[in-house]
Amino acid sequence: MQEGLSHPKSQFSSWFLEVVSRAGLADLRYGVKGFIVHLPPAVQAMKAMYRLYEQELERRGHKPYWFPAVIPESCFQLEKEHVEGFAPEVFWITQHGDQEELGEKLALRPTSETGIYRMFSLWIRSWKDLPLKLYQSCQVWRHETKATKPFIRGREFWWIEAHDAFATREEAEKQVLEDMEMTERVMHQEFGIPFIFFKRPEWDKFAGAVHTYAADSLMPDGRIIQQPSTHLLGQNFSKPFQILYTDEKGEKKHVWQTCYGPCIWRMLASVIAIHGDDKGLVFPFKIAPVQVVIIPVSQDTAVIKKCKEIYEKVRERFRAELDLTDRTPGWKFNEWELRGAAIRIEIGPKELQTKTLTLCRRDTGSRLCVQEYELLEEIEKLGEELTQNLIKRADEWFSSQVQDAKTLDEVRKKAGKGFLRVPWCSIDEKGRECAERLKEQFALHVRGVRVDKQEKPEGKCIICGKPAGCIVYIGRQY
Amino acid sequence: MQEGLSHPKSQFSSWFLEVVSRAGLADLRYGVKGFIVHLPPAVQAMKAMYRLYEQELERRGHKPYWFPAVIPESCFQLEKEHVEGFAPEVFWITQHGDQEELGEKLALRPTSETGIYRMFSLWIRSWKDLPLKLYQSCQVWRHETKATKPFIRGREFWWIEAHDAFATREEAEKQVLEDMEMTERVMHQEFGIPFIFFKRPEWDKFAGAVHTYAADSLMPDGRIIQQPSTHLLGQNFSKPFQILYTDEKGEKKHVWQTCYGPCIWRMLASVIAIHGDDKGLVFPFKIAPVQVVIIPVSQDTAVIKKCKEIYEKVRERFRAELDLTDRTPGWKFNEWELRGAAIRIEIGPKELQTKTLTLCRRDTGSRLCVQEYELLEEIEKLGEELTQNLIKRADEWFSSQVQDAKTLDEVRKKAGKGFLRVPWCSIDEKGRECAERLKEQFALHVRGVRVDKQEKPEGKCIICGKPAGCIVYIGRQY
Repeated sequence: MQEGLSHPKSQFSSWFLEVVSRAGLADLRYGVKGFIVHLPPAVQAMKAMYRLYEQELERRGHKPYWFPAVIPESCFQLEKEHVEGFAPEVFWITQHGDQEELGEKLALRPTSETGIYRMFSLWIRSWKDLPLKLYQSCQVWRHETKATKPFIRGREFWWIEAHDAFATREEAEKQVLEDMEMTERVMHQEFGIPFIFFKRPEWDKFAGAVHTYAADSLMPDGRIIQQPSTHLLGQNFSKPFQILYTDEKGEKKHVWQTCYGPCIWRMLASVIAIHGDDKGLVFPFKIAPVQVVIIPVSQDTAVIKKCKEIYEKVRERFRAELDLTDRTPGWKFNEWELRGAAIRIEIGPKELQTKTLTLCRRDTGSRLCVQEYELLEEIEKLGEELTQNLIKRADEWFSSQVQDAKTLDEVRKKAGKGFLRVPWCSIDEKGRECAERLKEQFALHVRGVRVDKQEKPEGKCIICGKPAGCIVYIGRQY
Repeated sequence: MQEGLSHPKSQFSSWFLEVVSRAGLADLRYGVKGFIVHLPPAVQAMKAMYRLYEQELERRGHKPYWFPAVIPESCFQLEKEHVEGFAPEVFWITQHGDQEELGEKLALRPTSETGIYRMFSLWIRSWKDLPLKLYQSCQVWRHETKATKPFIRGREFWWIEAHDAFATREEAEKQVLEDMEMTERVMHQEFGIPFIFFKRPEWDKFAGAVHTYAADSLMPDGRIIQQPSTHLLGQNFSKPFQILYTDEKGEKKHVWQTCYGPCIWRMLASVIAIHGDDKGLVFPFKIAPVQVVIIPVSQDTAVIKKCKEIYEKVRERFRAELDLTDRTPGWKFNEWELRGAAIRIEIGPKELQTKTLTLCRRDTGSRLCVQEYELLEEIEKLGEELTQNLIKRADEWFSSQVQDAKTLDEVRKKAGKGFLRVPWCSIDEKGRECAERLKEQFALHVRGVRVDKQEKPEGKCIICGKPAGCIVYIGRQY
């Protein structure tokens, strides 16, 4: 009998590492801290996730680019706050060949603003060149000092970065909203990851941004994981990088910019964590590495033949596997549940006789008998139902993870699980000290003010006791 | 009027650089030697090329992996010949943050054998783990000292590397043949790039290989460009990396390995060079960044409306553009020919009246009238005809580029254009000196012995005059 996971999902940290390794998503033994080897199911899932995100970005007018992985030091240092924010994490290429020094050090990109915006200054001349909306799907590298965890925090990860330039601040602000819509459209409606978009406090902005908005999701242990953020960069980069356009009246003006960073790698972490169960991985249908697995429940020649026939049919439209190894059907059921195959087709003598097929859904384990001629449509339908069920389940759990806390005492009692909704003095600079005290005393972070609805402040700041200027959400973070 | 290219294709070098820039494939002004910015059409073409190649690799049992971009120095140096071959070109990451030294220097991968094969030694235990066939699509970085040219030679480029391990030498040798078949299937039959596969001479093998087989194609100026190579690595890596399996009798043995490196980036160079013409880019249909462009030939409201309607229909299935800018139809025709849009749909009052559409093919310029209801099928059909025509044209030209030369005198007369087929002493070590003399005197390189057919040696080695042991092909190389 194939052994199940040794940790239930309620022991989240251990479960997560075990499922990543047992289901063959990643190998952590590469030998360089924070760098992992991505195994086929992880690559397949991420490729499907990239496709969905790229489609959405292109549908909204972004074009695909590939920029170099390196940024020259002089260029990297042009925006002061940005360089201060990222410099500590940069890997530097300084030599080539046999210890020969490079003319200029090259940063292995930790993010690409400084490399890309120098090109913006060459590309943008007139108002007719605007808006300029582009993205690249790529890896970035950051010398993280915190503990690294596969798909959650690493020194090398896979993401998308979208960089947009506009003639006016209004258009840039609209782009920030569009970025939030894309997050909802893809991360929530396709990947089933629930989130709340927050306007981040002044002291927690992206290095170089005017405002930062970030989608926070939760892990099953109640800790917060930051998913995509979108930043209103204003003219903070267009000034040092001299990105100017001539408007319709012939005046030269600096462009307004935004950037948006959906991290596919980290979204996979949320997919694993949110949808998985005690048996292993569960994926929304469209991004499942294996959408359909076909398992013969007898070694009968006619059964095997039918399995192969069905496999050939199914793989034309779906990512499919046919398991003809010499394990028992029970072993195979467990193994493919562990790996998160979305739909299992069982074929035995009974199925041959009745000319039907038995489909089993990974999320509910429920079985369905279908006629052969309707198989592909039924898979499609069942896949969609599975996805919708995962989204519903995730949403229900997520909304149960928000609690009110009006005083420090209540915070103390409820801290650690999900979000606490608390009255707060301010998310401007003047609230920073309260945030630092909250962090020191409770290891809790201020995530910011909700973007999707205005919440009326009531009561007093839980730290300084001044009248609340806003409602913020706090929690433990990854 | 949109200006045509200022260089005809017969001035190949200038034409190539002009078309890369005018058709918006790449921007060479990034400011780091050998690193270029890839603009949307280049990314779109390469993404389509990657998809076709990955499909073929997966169809033949390769699974997708992503390995880290860095290789620790100690690991990089395990195979002696390999490190000697690649070390001069390696970019080294030595620092992080503010000039802090890394514990161990990291090579930015110039190729991934040494990083991947250490994992092989962890993954392979028994004969049941074999064969192991995998690939990754990724970038590699090499500090080239030769002049860099976009898509031809750069310090950063995009490729696929496939790495396979087998129980026996015979299986590994079969894989080498399969790699050649895949090259034929995708590079020739999909991308239309003709080639000859050569067994490379001893002195021109991949660093660490037992044998190297490489597909040489030609550029329009008659110079040779190396396309994918596949290498029989034998046990040269499995010994230092200790990749051992236990066979069915319980004996421990070293695996036999192969690796194969189709470089999508460089294939794009061949696509541009081979299919392009005096008007600009021409792409095989499946990989064209723009498969269909729709151009209204009048500003009539009904015409514009019809254009939009057709565009919505066409983009469901093809990469399509609708050009509604205020340029003249003639300007647009030229512009989209320059950019290599495969099929142009012209819509004007006449088309509205007759409920037909006029399609124009990029390769021949010929026009075809189709009914609206059959549009998508006709595009598909025309696209396939276009591709087949490009392949045929390329093949005819390519086979005209092989000439015989029996003496040094003939070589002198014919040198520089395409391949010369010459009698040669040997492609083993003992032929090296002749090859060096040929290179010094004529700047000609020995490409090796044809793999697809046995050619009987006749006459004398053109250099040393000894009886010919083989027929080799020689030429100028990129």
